[in-house]
Amino acid sequence: SSHPTRRVDYGNRGMTLEDDLNTTNRYYREQHIALIHKKPTPLQIVNVDYPKRSAARITEAYFKKPSTTDYNGVYKGKYIDFEAKETQNKTALPLQNFHEHQIQHMQQVKEHGGIAFIIVKFSSNNEVYLLDAQFLFKFWQEQQDGGRKSIPKHTFVSNGFLIPQSYRPRIDYLKAIDQYYL
Amino acid sequence: SSHPTRRVDYGNRGMTLEDDLNTTNRYYREQHIALIHKKPTPLQIVNVDYPKRSAARITEAYFKKPSTTDYNGVYKGKYIDFEAKETQNKTALPLQNFHEHQIQHMQQVKEHGGIAFIIVKFSSNNEVYLLDAQFLFKFWQEQQDGGRKSIPKHTFVSNGFLIPQSYRPRIDYLKAIDQYYL
Ligand SMILES: [Mg+2]
Ligand SMILES: [Mg+2]
Repeated sequence: SSHPTRRVDYGNRGMTLEDDLNTTNRYYREQHIALIHKKPTPLQIVNVDYPKRSAARITEAYFKKPSTTDYNGVYKGKYIDFEAKETQNKTALPLQNFHEHQIQHMQQVKEHGGIAFIIVKFSSNNEVYLLDAQFLFKFWQEQQDGGRKSIPKHTFVSNGFLIPQSYRPRIDYLKAIDQYYL
Repeated sequence: SSHPTRRVDYGNRGMTLEDDLNTTNRYYREQHIALIHKKPTPLQIVNVDYPKRSAARITEAYFKKPSTTDYNGVYKGKYIDFEAKETQNKTALPLQNFHEHQIQHMQQVKEHGGIAFIIVKFSSNNEVYLLDAQFLFKFWQEQQDGGRKSIPKHTFVSNGFLIPQSYRPRIDYLKAIDQYYL
């Protein structure tokens, strides 16, 4: 048995982090502040129909594991790269939210002189933090060495930036970039 | 009536430009030279099946017009962005290969201090050129003012770089970046 249509539950707060980031990035583009896009979801296309008088229709495809992060672009001449995650967990971000490939990707970003970070929303109290990728690498390594399987909330509080939320832009994360990286 | 499976004709030369660029980018990543990826094809997903004991299956989706270019990444701290095109035309690259959105995207890349260019393969004689996006902008503008609908081959010869092709990497376009931009 299968469920033909997925209903998306946006929760009490209305918008998802992804919606808010898309709106923020559109604002940054329209205001000529930065050029940052979400990448399309990677899919494995298996079958395509080419009807005579209408658009090509994909009839079989599957989600692929992403080999990079979801967002990248350019700001003040700098290459920007990040992954966004939302959690219901009140005290930590579970590392199972990331794939090995994404960690390696962010390590390479830094190696080549780019700026890499994560944006994490703790849904329970609607706080959004920016945290430099070095902290993710540290906890990822510790997990591989048998340590804890999450990044504690206090790491975000102590080493990250609480991003102010407002109407336009919704999540002004470039403020944190200005302070932390530039 | 419809044709359920598309057969892809790779032509006499064997590999497509996209294949060669993917191989080249993998080489650049593995050798720690640069971090450049092709973005996934943007799709509009209409219907997804969630079978009980197997992977989610997309049963209806359509190709979307891309709002950005196909390739981006970071090289020596610089943001890199480009579009790749292949043409059978011997004397010019038809501008119909581009969308307005892609032109605007490349203009914004330059505005924010990134490096934007096109890589074009003239299949008839297997020549591959890198051309800075400024030339594309000029011909795009001229077309909108009623001018020619293509970029002449001699613009590539005079103002672009003929990219040397070999086994590893197949299409060493970063050589042109070093000479032209850095
Ligand atoms: Mg993701
Ligand atoms: Mg394309």
